[in-house]
Amino acid sequence: MSAHSLSILGTSSQLPTRDRNHSGFFVRWQQHGFLFDPGEGTQQHMLRYGVKASQITKIFISHFHGDHCLGLPGVIQRLSNDGVAHVVEVYYPASGEAFFQRLRYASHFHDRTNLCPCPISANGPVWQSERLAIYAERLEHNVECFGYRVEEKGKLSVDAEKAQRAGLSGPQIGALKQSGSLSVDGKVFKLRDFSIEKPGTVFAFVQDTRSCPAARRLLDNAHLAVLEATYLNAQDRPDETVSHMTIEEAAQLASQARVVAPVFTHFSTRYNDLEAFSQVATGIHPSALIAREGDVHDF
Amino acid sequence: MSAHSLSILGTSSQLPTRDRNHSGFFVRWQQHGFLFDPGEGTQQHMLRYGVKASQITKIFISHFHGDHCLGLPGVIQRLSNDGVAHVVEVYYPASGEAFFQRLRYASHFHDRTNLCPCPISANGPVWQSERLAIYAERLEHNVECFGYRVEEKGKLSVDAEKAQRAGLSGPQIGALKQSGSLSVDGKVFKLRDFSIEKPGTVFAFVQDTRSCPAARRLLDNAHLAVLEATYLNAQDRPDETVSHMTIEEAAQLASQARVVAPVFTHFSTRYNDLEAFSQVATGIHPSALIAREGDVHDF
Repeated sequence: MSAHSLSILGTSSQLPTRDRNHSGFFVRWQQHGFLFDPGEGTQQHMLRYGVKASQITKIFISHFHGDHCLGLPGVIQRLSNDGVAHVVEVYYPASGEAFFQRLRYASHFHDRTNLCPCPISANGPVWQSERLAIYAERLEHNVECFGYRVEEKGKLSVDAEKAQRAGLSGPQIGALKQSGSLSVDGKVFKLRDFSIEKPGTVFAFVQDTRSCPAARRLLDNAHLAVLEATYLNAQDRPDETVSHMTIEEAAQLASQARVVAPVFTHFSTRYNDLEAFSQVATGIHPSALIAREGDVHDF
Repeated sequence: MSAHSLSILGTSSQLPTRDRNHSGFFVRWQQHGFLFDPGEGTQQHMLRYGVKASQITKIFISHFHGDHCLGLPGVIQRLSNDGVAHVVEVYYPASGEAFFQRLRYASHFHDRTNLCPCPISANGPVWQSERLAIYAERLEHNVECFGYRVEEKGKLSVDAEKAQRAGLSGPQIGALKQSGSLSVDGKVFKLRDFSIEKPGTVFAFVQDTRSCPAARRLLDNAHLAVLEATYLNAQDRPDETVSHMTIEEAAQLASQARVVAPVFTHFSTRYNDLEAFSQVATGIHPSALIAREGDVHDF
């Protein structure tokens, strides 16, 4: 089992279809569980696709259009029903505080949750630990919308080949790792001269937005990224004010940002078949994936 | 196609299961469309089971537990999206006004609906026309909950056999119907002496509640009735404060009220198989039906 996986709960833009649900994405990240944009029905889609409420440690809302948040009451009430005792933080645009409060207390329930509201009003880190940092950045949509980036800090390790070339033996390399420096026959070796940084895993979540520099920054070198690609082509987009990407724009953005595996989603209900989306996307980025309900991608 | 039909959108109590949805019932009644208790996911279940937003003319909320109302935001936003121009009334317990407002404005949307909020604070008729009356009555639940009864007014018609026995011919009966009285050879016949009333169609919606006189009155002689039957037996009911019926209590209630076709629903998630519910119900009321997602019952 990989340390990181994405479970796709829903892929539809604005309205569900018979087969495509409102948005919903669950990222399992070691002991963490990140739920992104729970659209209507998320608590049931979690059951169908094997995500337990107790696995959720943080919830992220990009913005308060219904397809990205109407499942929040059900998820909160499910957390409560299941007696999930740990703190669950909820990140959302601070400008949507009124919507958050309505969804938080949408109906009667015996509230046993340990929810921590975390409204976001500026770009930057929203949570950090020794190993992980999560950033939010404002996207370009017709209501305030934040994208998210989860970034594991890089690990320093010794470049063993370089150390061997400098004449150090295996046990000497071990000693260098432990103490930071080592003296051999009067010559001093410093660990930093033999260190290489292995970049940590990065996940990015970008929707809803037009193609923009903030999206590009969030996506930069991500191993896996969820991107909105609402339209198959620009002719289908009603007008520029809708602030959504075509699959071509989204795939180019992912390609420019050197995303390893971009997962495209948020398809307009006008499309029944997504094969054409796949063709356009893989033509631009060979590892492009089209999000489908129930799919799980390890990364 | 019958003049009246019930489409079952969801049957689960409290939480959805993989296969059973939060509540949801659509009653097509001539030109009317009554949506009862839209739980989470109702807008998608409508799509799956062939109910269009434009068919809805009135929405009824029994109470503000999540499984009976969390789908309201999605339904309202779908009405708006589809440009449904006609007035849609929403009936709900007045004590839940705050919840209604939160669900009504749960997230950003361009509101094009013509919604008419109709809070209910007392038992009695909530809507009447020349042909139809809709009544609400307070049930016995742990939060305020109303049951509903839709009643077609009875039709007066002439008891032709009785008129013939009194010596009236066909044309004379026709004249009596038109004028209300008729004089034949000096003898005066009054229409009211030959009138019989054909009772109109009745539908009742009773959930959530313990068995109580109000439920009995709502159900009285209904042609079709939706009743909650949360538990298979009293041992499974955590305690009396939960205010739900067993299938036995619900079936007895339907039988005592002479409901023609009772449809039992609102099954606890602890049961996977509903066959035992069916056996208990039909043992008490031979025409009992067990609600299943996607079923349509004409009446």
